[in-house]
Amino acid sequence: MIRVHLAGEGAEAQDRSYDILCGRGLLAEVGPAIRQAGARRAVVIADAAVQETHAAAVAKSLRSAGLETETIAVASGETSKSLESAGRIWSHLARLAVDRATHVVAVGGGVVGDLSGFVAATFARGLSVWHVPTTLVAQVDSAIGGKTGINLAEGKNLVGAFWQPRGVFADIDALATLPDREFVSGLAEIVKYGMILDAQFFTWLEANAAGLLARDPERTAFAVHRSAALKARVVGQDEREISGLRAALNYGHTFGHAYETAAGYGTLLHGEAVAIGMSRAARLAALLGRIDAEVVGRQDALLARLSLPIAAQAAGSIAPERLLEIMARDKKSLGGRLRFVLPDRIGRAELVADIDPVLVRTALIAT
Amino acid sequence: MIRVHLAGEGAEAQDRSYDILCGRGLLAEVGPAIRQAGARRAVVIADAAVQETHAAAVAKSLRSAGLETETIAVASGETSKSLESAGRIWSHLARLAVDRATHVVAVGGGVVGDLSGFVAATFARGLSVWHVPTTLVAQVDSAIGGKTGINLAEGKNLVGAFWQPRGVFADIDALATLPDREFVSGLAEIVKYGMILDAQFFTWLEANAAGLLARDPERTAFAVHRSAALKARVVGQDEREISGLRAALNYGHTFGHAYETAAGYGTLLHGEAVAIGMSRAARLAALLGRIDAEVVGRQDALLARLSLPIAAQAAGSIAPERLLEIMARDKKSLGGRLRFVLPDRIGRAELVADIDPVLVRTALIAT
Repeated sequence: MIRVHLAGEGAEAQDRSYDILCGRGLLAEVGPAIRQAGARRAVVIADAAVQETHAAAVAKSLRSAGLETETIAVASGETSKSLESAGRIWSHLARLAVDRATHVVAVGGGVVGDLSGFVAATFARGLSVWHVPTTLVAQVDSAIGGKTGINLAEGKNLVGAFWQPRGVFADIDALATLPDREFVSGLAEIVKYGMILDAQFFTWLEANAAGLLARDPERTAFAVHRSAALKARVVGQDEREISGLRAALNYGHTFGHAYETAAGYGTLLHGEAVAIGMSRAARLAALLGRIDAEVVGRQDALLARLSLPIAAQAAGSIAPERLLEIMARDKKSLGGRLRFVLPDRIGRAELVADIDPVLVRTALIAT
Repeated sequence: MIRVHLAGEGAEAQDRSYDILCGRGLLAEVGPAIRQAGARRAVVIADAAVQETHAAAVAKSLRSAGLETETIAVASGETSKSLESAGRIWSHLARLAVDRATHVVAVGGGVVGDLSGFVAATFARGLSVWHVPTTLVAQVDSAIGGKTGINLAEGKNLVGAFWQPRGVFADIDALATLPDREFVSGLAEIVKYGMILDAQFFTWLEANAAGLLARDPERTAFAVHRSAALKARVVGQDEREISGLRAALNYGHTFGHAYETAAGYGTLLHGEAVAIGMSRAARLAALLGRIDAEVVGRQDALLARLSLPIAAQAAGSIAPERLLEIMARDKKSLGGRLRFVLPDRIGRAELVADIDPVLVRTALIAT
């Protein structure tokens, strides 16, 4: 069990800290835990792809614990992270006469987690939410840390709130139903944690890449636990992305989001875009003299062994100018100037501002 | 100047505490204050009714202080507190490439304040917001305390967030443009503060009712200042409506919201509905033996002298069953059971749970 210790003093902070459970057979434990937290009623918001399987198991556990339980299904895919979906769920909750003793339980990947978290943050000015991530990327990243949001036509995650869950259940067994491509996509975020925070973990990943790719449960459980613990530590120290520590988690993401946007949402999986993004960020760091070619090579080799893309061409044929333009509009840019999280060795990275666009362009087209 | 001291320890709490300025000629002070708080850019969200007057004065003050300033107008009236309006403003902010160094300045009444606060709370996971309330009800109530929200077809304020402003500017001079009916509506909230928190203030209101109704500036300034200070004290002690202290501010509001919903938004002004609601709540308290007829009579007399409605019929002909049904769905109800804030003497009230619907029905139809 990992505890996310949120900053602050006294009873208020204690209330907001929460546990992340990582392991096997956890879906059955959801009901008793939520019951014990004082819920009288639960609304499961489920990705349609896992409605009949994992979400049904969670709903059964909630009912067995004596909670009145309803399920709302959400279509799979990024297009569900919309104002329309949020509006539909808010109205549904209103018709169910949901009150503050009703807890929301999100079952699915990042889309359902981000959407459900935002809906919970804003219905009746805040309902308790629990995350039951069933994809690898959600277990190691999106379900931890309280970032919630939806997309606008104008850009990703433009509308949202910081809203910490009451708890997270990362059940490794739930990953069994995950398609290979999505599992591999999640490995990109795991590599990221090694690169920016934990050299020893990076070395472990190098030694265990084949086992992870084969979805060995022991190795998967270790990688999920270590990644979740690293993220929990960062979130606890910089919940609202103020000190800059949390910003380091965006390693590969400024490039990655630009590739996702340019390729059209749904073409690349998030982790695939992040892998290409990390390969570009490492090249930019090398151009700036922050790391040497050996570090770039080790990251490339690990990503390749995990079947993740590295080459810019993997995103299709996109003009570097188009990517530069998208990055200047990113909400992590400040006054249109480019900022990137860059490593200075394996296990450490920081936010670097005011980078020459010429170097960024070179990194975008480097082999 | 009134300071809202938010609970918590250390730097975090200090950052979230804020000042409420009450007085005359304050619109010109908005720009320098926001500039000093570190804003680089401002977006004024203005009620269309004050766009050319008060909002223009605020925008001028912001530009004079060196801030790049844009104005977004919102149609007057409760129908603007909608998902559609929020969506339109979010997209507008996205097109303006607003970042976290941009502050939102809400100029208008409760509708614009609640809508702008919600939009600010959720754009880019949180922009700073300042309130410049230009109606009496907003100056004494809605602009203070960080409750933001929009309505759904299913009910009022069902979607929203707690989002504290950086500061509030309650300019008494701005009330000059307010129609009489709206000014009178605001007096209902002022009576509420006397009833639930401050017997001495209630007595002052009885002695100064004629002067307030005549919109005497000295008396208005005193009543606004006292009301804002009372609300600030309660919010500081119970920001998120957890201890029950803040719930007392809902005196008259459970009944009032039901009348507003049943009559159709826009038929009754909010303060008119609250006045009828307080008259019903006092009768319910008397039926429960919590207060005697003299207290009901004093409240009735003060409301009547201020030209506020008391009789249930003022809302039109509405079946009590319809009101009971709406109240059971209220987000302050718990498990469908009715809860009301009820006085036990002038100057004190508390939340009372599990009230017999038969008595509520009697209070609804009492003369």
